[in-house]
Amino acid sequence: MNEFSPIYMLMSEIGTFTDCAIITDDTDRRYFTGMRSSDGTLVVFSDAAYLIIDSRYIEKAQKTVTSCQVLLQTKLYQQINELIKKHEAVKASVNSANTTVERLNILSERLDCQLDDSNELAETIRSIRAVKRGEEIEKMIAAQRIAEAGFEHMLEFIRPGRTEKEIQLELDFYMLSHGAEALSFDTIALTGKNTSMPHGVPGDTAVEQGSFVLMDFGAIVEGYHSDMTRTVCVGEPDDEMKKVYDIVLQAQLAGIAAVREGIAGSELDAVSRKIINDAGYGGNFGHSLGHGVGMDIHETPFASPSSKDVLLADMIVTVEPGIYLPDRFGVRIEDFVVVKEDGCFNMTKAPKELIIL
Amino acid sequence: MNEFSPIYMLMSEIGTFTDCAIITDDTDRRYFTGMRSSDGTLVVFSDAAYLIIDSRYIEKAQKTVTSCQVLLQTKLYQQINELIKKHEAVKASVNSANTTVERLNILSERLDCQLDDSNELAETIRSIRAVKRGEEIEKMIAAQRIAEAGFEHMLEFIRPGRTEKEIQLELDFYMLSHGAEALSFDTIALTGKNTSMPHGVPGDTAVEQGSFVLMDFGAIVEGYHSDMTRTVCVGEPDDEMKKVYDIVLQAQLAGIAAVREGIAGSELDAVSRKIINDAGYGGNFGHSLGHGVGMDIHETPFASPSSKDVLLADMIVTVEPGIYLPDRFGVRIEDFVVVKEDGCFNMTKAPKELIIL
Repeated sequence: MNEFSPIYMLMSEIGTFTDCAIITDDTDRRYFTGMRSSDGTLVVFSDAAYLIIDSRYIEKAQKTVTSCQVLLQTKLYQQINELIKKHEAVKASVNSANTTVERLNILSERLDCQLDDSNELAETIRSIRAVKRGEEIEKMIAAQRIAEAGFEHMLEFIRPGRTEKEIQLELDFYMLSHGAEALSFDTIALTGKNTSMPHGVPGDTAVEQGSFVLMDFGAIVEGYHSDMTRTVCVGEPDDEMKKVYDIVLQAQLAGIAAVREGIAGSELDAVSRKIINDAGYGGNFGHSLGHGVGMDIHETPFASPSSKDVLLADMIVTVEPGIYLPDRFGVRIEDFVVVKEDGCFNMTKAPKELIIL
Repeated sequence: MNEFSPIYMLMSEIGTFTDCAIITDDTDRRYFTGMRSSDGTLVVFSDAAYLIIDSRYIEKAQKTVTSCQVLLQTKLYQQINELIKKHEAVKASVNSANTTVERLNILSERLDCQLDDSNELAETIRSIRAVKRGEEIEKMIAAQRIAEAGFEHMLEFIRPGRTEKEIQLELDFYMLSHGAEALSFDTIALTGKNTSMPHGVPGDTAVEQGSFVLMDFGAIVEGYHSDMTRTVCVGEPDDEMKKVYDIVLQAQLAGIAAVREGIAGSELDAVSRKIINDAGYGGNFGHSLGHGVGMDIHETPFASPSSKDVLLADMIVTVEPGIYLPDRFGVRIEDFVVVKEDGCFNMTKAPKELIIL
């Protein structure tokens, strides 16, 4: 454990608003301990941290978890109460963003201290998780390389007659059999008119000549997600398809060029949005420009008109403008980048010029 | 809408403990409205129910949702407040089992009524969802038929040299390309020593001659899950493998024979557990016998030593005893059944005698 380890950062915040953090969410626990499990409780004080975990995981935890003391779970609430007593904690906090009201009720009943139902621990954890260490970025790059190999594979697979569902399954199967531990989210694969639905679900629609195919997808490596979108054309696009693709690409490139430490999420969103607005498609970009990515697919910071977030160095943000013309077609292009002092590092290497298959 | 519709059942409970239910969970909302969406708020009073949903879903909701009044979402909290005022509600409840503390904090701040943080609405929804209607059972049977076709396919696919990960992906791909809208959960496919881990994760271990292959998997159809486990042997099992398989099978058959309306979940668990205990493997059955299945993969009722649930007619329960010998092998056999007045209807048709490949 060192002062840059996540749990150390959390310990240094405990005391400013609470005496103790009780973390039960699988993702938070994996983030702070480095170990994946489907159960376990992390109890963090300003001067010590404990992982209480059951017999299924104890051996692995004792071998791999160095960021906190590992305790075999026997009587969970009694064990937490002993730690609370030992560290003289009066107030304990949960992550309100992923703790249910029912769980809070159980903790209130069983623990010998006051339970904090504010959002303070949630905000603290969001802030810590938003700024990535080198090893986290390496995992996201590894995930992105798998997704990009999948994209290349799809350029061979896609042809007239293939259905959205077939494209989705082929891409998923490729990523999962080439090192992805899971998919970042349900892969979006749409064609024809369906591309105009930003969050459409793949169905039985088949690719036709002269149609776009839009794919939004990602792989997970050691808990870290990738996220990319590409829109390709099967056969020759018509003039408006070419025009819209080019506007989205310009908006996307301008967005990436604007990313740097200190820019507000709302300001970044505005850079890309202005290009789409100025081209006359302002009413056809109905979602926000981007979001953070990490152990969750959507996390801090957010780049949207109403975002209050400011981008800091080593945060991640997607840049994914789109134009959607109802009942006709849609285009979205998405990369994800690491925010740097004077710009960004683009983790996405796949080509963005319009690919015609 | 009729008096047997889920939302009517919920409305008839409102008033006994609250004035209004605010439902935001995707699964609960899909259950009560019959429509799948990634966003939307269901507001239920004793005499009326409303679905507030955004422009992406409004057309579909107006066409398909008959159980409540459909309103286009504009200013969500203002709209809920107007309904609260109209129906003179003083107290509003959320489902504490799937509402985060953060969400409750937002509702408390924005709504002009007292927010109930008890577990009463959660208990009410659990009870309603636990008892299935005919159309729900039909969907689970459809899901189970897909899973069983996948199992048959796997009997051809499994051979020495295939890895757990390959078996998992083949089975997943089969179910997803044969009508499953999604997988019930991450498919478990284990072989050799790994079968002794009840919740092991498929890896690169290859099937060897004389080894068990354990698969625990399910398909989803229209939101409804199936769940089954089969353990097959590649090549001839040794005597203890045969003996253990037979004990688990006897425990499973006895469990199914004991299911009937009125039996306690703990009593059902005890029936199968006694057979395993009496055979001398009491320490090797470390999980509970079964759980309900529906729009969630684990739901009420639970069949475990500590369960307080009583099985009612038309509830679903899995019967899945197992024996796990660390560093050697494990066997689990799982069916899922519908509780009936004088027994049960087994939705699982796949064979259970030891299959030797």
